[in-house]
Amino acid sequence: MARAVVLLSGGLDSYTAAAAARREDVELCALTFQYGQRHAVELDAARRVAAALGISRHLVMDLDLSAIGGSALTTAGAEIPKDGADTGEIPVTYVPGRNTIFLAVAMGWAESLDASQIIIGVNAVDYSGYPDCRPEFIHAFEQLARVATRAGVEGHPMAIRAPLLHLSKAEIIRLGVELGLDYGLSRSCYDPDASGAPRGRCDSCRLRAAGFAAAGVVDPLGSSAGSR
Amino acid sequence: MARAVVLLSGGLDSYTAAAAARREDVELCALTFQYGQRHAVELDAARRVAAALGISRHLVMDLDLSAIGGSALTTAGAEIPKDGADTGEIPVTYVPGRNTIFLAVAMGWAESLDASQIIIGVNAVDYSGYPDCRPEFIHAFEQLARVATRAGVEGHPMAIRAPLLHLSKAEIIRLGVELGLDYGLSRSCYDPDASGAPRGRCDSCRLRAAGFAAAGVVDPLGSSAGSR
Repeated sequence: MARAVVLLSGGLDSYTAAAAARREDVELCALTFQYGQRHAVELDAARRVAAALGISRHLVMDLDLSAIGGSALTTAGAEIPKDGADTGEIPVTYVPGRNTIFLAVAMGWAESLDASQIIIGVNAVDYSGYPDCRPEFIHAFEQLARVATRAGVEGHPMAIRAPLLHLSKAEIIRLGVELGLDYGLSRSCYDPDASGAPRGRCDSCRLRAAGFAAAGVVDPLGSSAGSR
Repeated sequence: MARAVVLLSGGLDSYTAAAAARREDVELCALTFQYGQRHAVELDAARRVAAALGISRHLVMDLDLSAIGGSALTTAGAEIPKDGADTGEIPVTYVPGRNTIFLAVAMGWAESLDASQIIIGVNAVDYSGYPDCRPEFIHAFEQLARVATRAGVEGHPMAIRAPLLHLSKAEIIRLGVELGLDYGLSRSCYDPDASGAPRGRCDSCRLRAAGFAAAGVVDPLGSSAGSR
């Protein structure tokens, strides 16, 4: 059976991407980062999601991206934009280098595990405008992996699979429902309250809410879904 | 003045690469990883080298690559090959994904610092046979950075500079001597003794010793230079 490393954040997208990949008879190994994000509640969600997917090998790695700065998402006290002030620019919640760093570590772990695939839940349709969520980024990373790894040099390049890349948020949610996923386990909010509950006003909550609405599905997280 | 992030390991190559880049009037910011390497003595060397180069911004980042496994260099108790048993294969000291991960973090930090260059001391002539020390790897990473960063998307792609890529070890050492570097500050050994002194028998020591010999220069570290 092919083995794959899946980047599992605890959010809706990576949960769905992992489940979609699992249909094709691959053994999943999950990789989650504790990267200094303000929404550490994601980590608990990642553990729940991994358990629900029956993943037995789950590596949670400490990697303090707040040290490199440059993002409201890893800076204590920085304001997370609310209510969709879409300026057409890359938003302040963008973490410089994040997906490149995550894929690089996944590639190293995949090489060590003899895994032939990396699965990432990026999406270039209903997304936040981050440069490292686009098809050209995924393609460039796959090209890099061909020359950066022992397997690539030996003629067995690693595949970077992004099964949600061209789906709308509503299509992702419909796929997840079809796969029987419990989205009550996942968390998406960039700015949860002290109890860890989503507030429903950040970009991530708004995309989630709009996706559930368009899919005609009720978000089991209820009022988190941007209804406030 | 252009700003650059330099990957500084504390070894001879990154010290020389940084000094070579500094000639061209760039402001250097140094990035060093505490990555679970057995030769932690490198970290002290990196701090000395950064000070000698007059670098005021030096980020030492914890990133435990031993968690992803796959290398004798980050595995307690694993044997480091000695006396040059060259099999023509990628050696067991290869750390899967290492340079990809290091460049990815450097890219994120560079983006956050508004730096336009990353400097890495890889060398594809007298090297250990790692896939991520070759020109095609550097080129692929540069292509990735074009699409992975805000600056790249906005038309200011980041340059990945590898000034030692095509130099022999002897040429690197001659360049360093010309630049007035004190190689007594640097450390290269994969397998130092309990006091941190190089033993002179690993691949890295052997390459260093052969380089000094070919350059006709005495290694200030003396007997470390593979003479035992």
